[in-house]
Amino acid sequence: MVFTASQLGVFDLLRESGELMSSATVAERLKTSLTGMQMLLGACVEIKVLKVEWKDGKDLYGNTEFADLFLAKSSPKSQYYTMKFLSENIYGSLQYLPEAIRDGKPQILSIYGISSNELYGALYRSNEGVQNFLRYMDEAWSLYGKEVVSAFDLSGFQLIYDLGGSSGGLAKEFISKYPNCTVTLFDLPEVMEISKKYNAFSDGSQITFHEGDFFKDPIPEADLYILSRVLVNWNDEKCIQLLTKVFTACKPGGGVLVVEPTVDEEIFGSFPAHMYAMISLLLTRGKLRKPSELCVFFNITGFKDIQFKKGNVFDVILARK
Amino acid sequence: MVFTASQLGVFDLLRESGELMSSATVAERLKTSLTGMQMLLGACVEIKVLKVEWKDGKDLYGNTEFADLFLAKSSPKSQYYTMKFLSENIYGSLQYLPEAIRDGKPQILSIYGISSNELYGALYRSNEGVQNFLRYMDEAWSLYGKEVVSAFDLSGFQLIYDLGGSSGGLAKEFISKYPNCTVTLFDLPEVMEISKKYNAFSDGSQITFHEGDFFKDPIPEADLYILSRVLVNWNDEKCIQLLTKVFTACKPGGGVLVVEPTVDEEIFGSFPAHMYAMISLLLTRGKLRKPSELCVFFNITGFKDIQFKKGNVFDVILARK
Repeated sequence: MVFTASQLGVFDLLRESGELMSSATVAERLKTSLTGMQMLLGACVEIKVLKVEWKDGKDLYGNTEFADLFLAKSSPKSQYYTMKFLSENIYGSLQYLPEAIRDGKPQILSIYGISSNELYGALYRSNEGVQNFLRYMDEAWSLYGKEVVSAFDLSGFQLIYDLGGSSGGLAKEFISKYPNCTVTLFDLPEVMEISKKYNAFSDGSQITFHEGDFFKDPIPEADLYILSRVLVNWNDEKCIQLLTKVFTACKPGGGVLVVEPTVDEEIFGSFPAHMYAMISLLLTRGKLRKPSELCVFFNITGFKDIQFKKGNVFDVILARK
Repeated sequence: MVFTASQLGVFDLLRESGELMSSATVAERLKTSLTGMQMLLGACVEIKVLKVEWKDGKDLYGNTEFADLFLAKSSPKSQYYTMKFLSENIYGSLQYLPEAIRDGKPQILSIYGISSNELYGALYRSNEGVQNFLRYMDEAWSLYGKEVVSAFDLSGFQLIYDLGGSSGGLAKEFISKYPNCTVTLFDLPEVMEISKKYNAFSDGSQITFHEGDFFKDPIPEADLYILSRVLVNWNDEKCIQLLTKVFTACKPGGGVLVVEPTVDEEIFGSFPAHMYAMISLLLTRGKLRKPSELCVFFNITGFKDIQFKKGNVFDVILARK
């Protein structure tokens, strides 16, 4: 419902006008039915994303601060594509959640009607699909990026690879915090193609692109590898396979930085972490792990000096070769 | 997610066992994957529908009182079919909400892929569809029925017709509160057929059945007509048409009892009322109305002595001929 208001442009209209507007004006400007808009605005007031004032018998609506910041598409901290992703990929698919829990397997076939059971094949069917997914991945870093890159002092790492770096949202936070580093985004060709257009970095940029599949193609040598929202989408076997490859490529004294939600030792996390877990179940072969489970991966693959930092949504783990 | 746990039988298992159970036992008894079940149980604890205790390093789960009462299918106050209706008919359809608000029209064609744009045609395509819908309609009365039938002293009415009475859930509350009345359920043949089986009233029951379409077929004479969750699903023209017919059939001194959520004069209601409004927009040609809008209908069609009683979800309006 909030996404509906966002899609119709309610929050942007109210943000840009800078003044309160009647339901009639909102409906007229956004070319919707009056009754429908009135009911939508009323519901948005109820859940406190809009505020209302009554003046001369007229209802006048405005954004709450929350809507201005996060729901208007035009805001720098907008979470529009996150809502879009959840709305288009998750809400309707929740009907397959019982099956996912029964089988312990993703339900890509039922959800997207394609025979591959890999999420990325489904999401990346079209350029628009890639773009929407990249923007969704990006939006989280406008909220949590600074927290993540500040979790540890990473200024000692020069050459950084962001494996599955997609849109470069986290990479941008890295170079802003650590101006001496360079970050190479390593992702599938179809992703890199869109990511390049989307980012349009200047020639001398500290962010560069590397096309490849990190399971199949060689991983170049570097000081630090970022695995952000990667392991959570893969099963234990694939995680160990990937970390082994990373360990081999990594310079001595280098490290790996895992960024993803985790659950604590008693399987409790935050509300977003649990929602993340349900999405993982539905769409991927991965799972939300405990820090101790991730430590096992590091130990098996040779990494040591493991440090863990709890975040608001994304936890950060640094391990060294 | 809560419905997933309900569908898989988590709440019933924990309700019936009467003791705490480990995630491994729950997964085994319900034949699901262990990882999936652990993540589901963790999420259910997070949103406080399950509770957990740790004993000898084992996680032991139990229902909260709320889950025992409302989420277990076997509870007399279960809201299982309400969750099922929302899960199967609403969550996925919310993607069509922007279109519904733009057009001010229901989106039955997009949602159900059938050419009729009437909700009931879509819901009643199969016997199972009728049955699920009836149970959904019924469940609300296990929570709010007593409040509704006690809103006014209705003991003066003997012969009552419940127009669109579907499952008879509210009718049962009526005869329990007013033992001298008889209630006739008036609904479409496909609904009455299921309702009869579903209810299996004894021969001498105070509840009887009348097959018909209240827009097309004659409405018999009675003392009181119940219109529960009916007007909210129809546009103004249809509401006036129906109330005119009811007024003509009604005995002098008789009345009509409208039961549905309303919004106050400043378009604000409860959270359930607003959700109801969104569902109306998406699925019907109706809308959530203000009491004053319903009064206009009564005035136009000849009813008088209007009394209004605010309820927790369902408001009650009595008007007399």
